[in-house]
Amino acid sequence: MLPATETLLRERGLSGAGIQQVVARSRAPIGSVYHFFPKGKTQLVGEALQIHSEKARALLEHFLSDKAAPLPDRFRALCRNAAAGFDHAGANKGCAIGSVSLDLDARLEALRAICQNAFDGWIASIAQELPWADEAERRSFAEMAVASLEGAFVLSRARRSGEPFLTVGEWLARILEQTAAMGGNHGSASR
Amino acid sequence: MLPATETLLRERGLSGAGIQQVVARSRAPIGSVYHFFPKGKTQLVGEALQIHSEKARALLEHFLSDKAAPLPDRFRALCRNAAAGFDHAGANKGCAIGSVSLDLDARLEALRAICQNAFDGWIASIAQELPWADEAERRSFAEMAVASLEGAFVLSRARRSGEPFLTVGEWLARILEQTAAMGGNHGSASR
Repeated sequence: MLPATETLLRERGLSGAGIQQVVARSRAPIGSVYHFFPKGKTQLVGEALQIHSEKARALLEHFLSDKAAPLPDRFRALCRNAAAGFDHAGANKGCAIGSVSLDLDARLEALRAICQNAFDGWIASIAQELPWADEAERRSFAEMAVASLEGAFVLSRARRSGEPFLTVGEWLARILEQTAAMGGNHGSASR
Repeated sequence: MLPATETLLRERGLSGAGIQQVVARSRAPIGSVYHFFPKGKTQLVGEALQIHSEKARALLEHFLSDKAAPLPDRFRALCRNAAAGFDHAGANKGCAIGSVSLDLDARLEALRAICQNAFDGWIASIAQELPWADEAERRSFAEMAVASLEGAFVLSRARRSGEPFLTVGEWLARILEQTAAMGGNHGSASR
């Protein structure tokens, strides 16, 4: 049921991942939902978001830790992969964390915390790959990277094309190249 | 009813803007919905999105055409305004266009087209303010700006703080400053 929930969140956001839809998509008997997820939809969605968050973090780290390539090219490769993955999956699936973030209301504090932690974890993963001495600068660029990737999902959904990921990857790479060319980040050492 | 629809889309996405919720929020009699919007929810949401799109475009142009300030500072000012606006509005409202984009399914082609046109319009508005000779480059940076602003809404919703807009504004401004410092964009003239 968790893979079905994750897919439904990516396609239609929180309202798309109702118990009925999850049962229909996963072909699980409805009784099993409340057996495995006694707290119902919030628990099911929360666990699917955790899985999505970990998968995305592993993917980020896979591309950004590839020491064989210069850092800007690692961002280009990450975004090329995201663009191709978006198109290959039908050009109709966003990021489950991003979709739920835009559907939150005050009753969903537990899910909001999961989304915030997911973004914070991704920011930390990206920041640790940056060659700059200033930790605040590393976190700031990593936050820009996560924001622009989330925004690429939004634009790609509207356009039904993963092209915006390529745009985002190119500009993230250029920031890193320009910063290195201008003598690193506020005087810090460059890898 | 249109302002209520726009607010509901910003708070909860497409599923939050059902006819019942719009009626409850706007205190309009339910019969008037089908009087003014005979095609129902899709028409109501489509018109609310058009209004949101025009308002956002006017706001972009207001900040980015301010010739008294250097271009990078105009992006900083736009994003400072967005951060303050986000927090002031309760830190729980996204972009209506972005929210609907992540909730689309194949039955909603009319709404998808409205979202795509909104993003294309914003990209054109930003691109026209850039000082670079290469039109493809202007559009590319403008697309990065729109993607990162949409992503800032996503991260800000999860964090309940408009802070990500400040991060995005700073990096967009730095791209422009670094490009100018490195001799313009691929040799094109700088304003």
